[in-house]
Amino acid sequence: MSYCIATYRCFDGKADFHKKAQSIAVGLTVGSWTELPEAKKAEMEKHLGRVLSVDIHEPAAGGDSSASERYADIRIAYPDVNFSADIPALLVTVFGKLSMDGRIRLIDLHFSAAFMSRFPGPKFGLNGVRERLGVHDRPLLMSIFKSVIGHDLSGLREQFYGQAVGGVDLIKDDEILFENPLTPIGKRVETCMQAAEQAQRETGQKLLYAVNLTGPTSKLAANAKQAIEAGANALLFNVLAYGFDVLHELSADPDIRVPIAAHPALAGAIYPSPHYGIGASVLLGKLMRLAGADLVLFPSPYGSVVMPREENMAIQHALTTTELTVDYISRYDSDNATGRSGAATEQPAAGLKTSFPVPSAGIHPGLVPLILRDFGQDVVVNAGGGIHGHPMGTAAGGRAFRQAIQAASQSVKLADAAAQADNLELKTALELWGNRE
Amino acid sequence: MSYCIATYRCFDGKADFHKKAQSIAVGLTVGSWTELPEAKKAEMEKHLGRVLSVDIHEPAAGGDSSASERYADIRIAYPDVNFSADIPALLVTVFGKLSMDGRIRLIDLHFSAAFMSRFPGPKFGLNGVRERLGVHDRPLLMSIFKSVIGHDLSGLREQFYGQAVGGVDLIKDDEILFENPLTPIGKRVETCMQAAEQAQRETGQKLLYAVNLTGPTSKLAANAKQAIEAGANALLFNVLAYGFDVLHELSADPDIRVPIAAHPALAGAIYPSPHYGIGASVLLGKLMRLAGADLVLFPSPYGSVVMPREENMAIQHALTTTELTVDYISRYDSDNATGRSGAATEQPAAGLKTSFPVPSAGIHPGLVPLILRDFGQDVVVNAGGGIHGHPMGTAAGGRAFRQAIQAASQSVKLADAAAQADNLELKTALELWGNRE
Repeated sequence: MSYCIATYRCFDGKADFHKKAQSIAVGLTVGSWTELPEAKKAEMEKHLGRVLSVDIHEPAAGGDSSASERYADIRIAYPDVNFSADIPALLVTVFGKLSMDGRIRLIDLHFSAAFMSRFPGPKFGLNGVRERLGVHDRPLLMSIFKSVIGHDLSGLREQFYGQAVGGVDLIKDDEILFENPLTPIGKRVETCMQAAEQAQRETGQKLLYAVNLTGPTSKLAANAKQAIEAGANALLFNVLAYGFDVLHELSADPDIRVPIAAHPALAGAIYPSPHYGIGASVLLGKLMRLAGADLVLFPSPYGSVVMPREENMAIQHALTTTELTVDYISRYDSDNATGRSGAATEQPAAGLKTSFPVPSAGIHPGLVPLILRDFGQDVVVNAGGGIHGHPMGTAAGGRAFRQAIQAASQSVKLADAAAQADNLELKTALELWGNRE
Repeated sequence: MSYCIATYRCFDGKADFHKKAQSIAVGLTVGSWTELPEAKKAEMEKHLGRVLSVDIHEPAAGGDSSASERYADIRIAYPDVNFSADIPALLVTVFGKLSMDGRIRLIDLHFSAAFMSRFPGPKFGLNGVRERLGVHDRPLLMSIFKSVIGHDLSGLREQFYGQAVGGVDLIKDDEILFENPLTPIGKRVETCMQAAEQAQRETGQKLLYAVNLTGPTSKLAANAKQAIEAGANALLFNVLAYGFDVLHELSADPDIRVPIAAHPALAGAIYPSPHYGIGASVLLGKLMRLAGADLVLFPSPYGSVVMPREENMAIQHALTTTELTVDYISRYDSDNATGRSGAATEQPAAGLKTSFPVPSAGIHPGLVPLILRDFGQDVVVNAGGGIHGHPMGTAAGGRAFRQAIQAASQSVKLADAAAQADNLELKTALELWGNRE
């Protein structure tokens, strides 16, 4: 017997949270329990959800507003036997109907080892992306096309080359660039990969181009293979517009032999409310990694599109922890459930590769030391305006970032690095955007 | 030139909303505008988003809490030429990155006639479902299996028969019933359809059984066809767990020749917050109909799982309006945008069939007059506990609803109907659950 565990934060000024937890555990599994005859109970017990804990937060007297709201964190274990081993089935079970039942938020998910074993996870993962690029000793640098809609192949090629020659490791399509007559995916890949080769002859550096995978759901795998055929060495995918299961199927496809970068488009419709939705570390962390994203973009805490730093850190943890038994896998079995044993069962850690965290939006070179302080070396520094808006041009924008990354990786102060004669690009960037070191 | 129009509600205590609107219109389309040379502007103009209106709501002085928040309703027109004609592309364009940009909510969407013409919409629709059942003169009655997990085929058959013989028009699977060894979809359909035939010999009444369509995304169409082969005459689908595009592809598949009922599982992670997410009338109304749902379930305003009545009415309007030019289609063209003409272009109404509204949860016979007052005759009365919990049994529960529907449809008071000797089931139901007439 194995169980997946959901943790909810449930807000209510007066509810009996223990009763509420029981009604969830029964209502979302066997439907009814107390009225069942004993013989039927024995037969149905393996399908019964279990309340693991109910932690009630009573508001402080005289406190004000949301900090003083009454809520409970409720953990429920759902028997694997109740649902098929796919993300839609798990989510519909634990948060399908329940999501509509008042002020309630799904804040964590633990998978059973058996459930998790059905997911290959990222095909390349953090280390596989590093291997593809041959870069192991520093954070990576990604840049984003600036304006792409309405531009033709020569415009894209020029922009691509400028980014590539500045020393970026990855270039991503704009997520709002769809199949279009000016820059259709096959031609776009060919043109951009030629620009990548040209730049590589100058920089000696490899580069991944994450081309935006779009189209009808049933054609995505074929479109991906066409792009790969044309030379694409990475994909960008708007996961939440299509569903986690689609990402899972793409990443598990043996013929899709390139890393997949998950874009968080539409995630803001789900994670930011304190009272509703799904926590960012579940939505953009655990589920993205389980479904097989090699890189995951999410709003950084540094710029204009803001996610709190602690949520960034929770996403990072979900994407990169190797202590899967603690963080991902439910250490809970039916013996615990029925009180026949006090000890958690040892379960093997499922071997999901880690995913590269990509905090995005509002990034400029002066933020690089902050990013490394928060994320360490295993992070992709991702910039759009912070590269294209450099006063000396796009290529200089890339070089400014690389200079900042080199300095911060070696614990050299950005101000000191900027004072060096060959780091003029960094000096210029710090003058424009400031130094948040 | 045609445009799709998104309406946002944007909360901010001090923002310049006109500036914000411009930055959305430019940022989510051409990327930059003011700095473009004039020749480039002429070329890019067809790709530029347009601010149609900015309605600022200033808080009343001395007002309290949320009612006094400052917000603006902003309407932006997005050129169709920027995105492919599919729901993922539209949503990523209008609310991909923007969803993560502070307190902002997508509250309405208007499709261009050209965009909408790419969607066949519901294959059967409200009238097609009525035709399949041969019922044109009253609301329909749907019942929901009670406990299904852990039950075998004989248990399901018994429950199905009890519901069918009570006179329900549709029976839906529990949305948390996935592929499982006890009741695999093929056997489940065969067994339940046999029970349906047996009941029909007694009642003379047709019945649709919406079997839950689950599994890997790439296998859904095959699973649907297998179920239809086994005799299924309707499908239930957890749309938001898979994505609107998957529903669209299923409904457009010529071999899937049965009505599809859309379940709102997970919708509560998206619509309820006042500050974030996507409005219910868009999420469970316009997009479900566009994607081809023949019936759409949503939380009723009457029971325990509550959605406000005005949101229910907005969903109903989105599902059933035939004035598509006003409600669905953007009456906006490029001549308006550039001020060359003041008049809206006449566009043909796309011929989407209407979808059956199915307000659900907490429904008992005493609520039927309220439901009909709000929805009229074109509604599916949907009950679970209100049928199975009837003191005289499941079949009596169905009969009590049919008696209530007959009375309310003929403007007979429930209390008067319940006093008739042959309406004992209704009398018993009203005694247990009350009469909200």
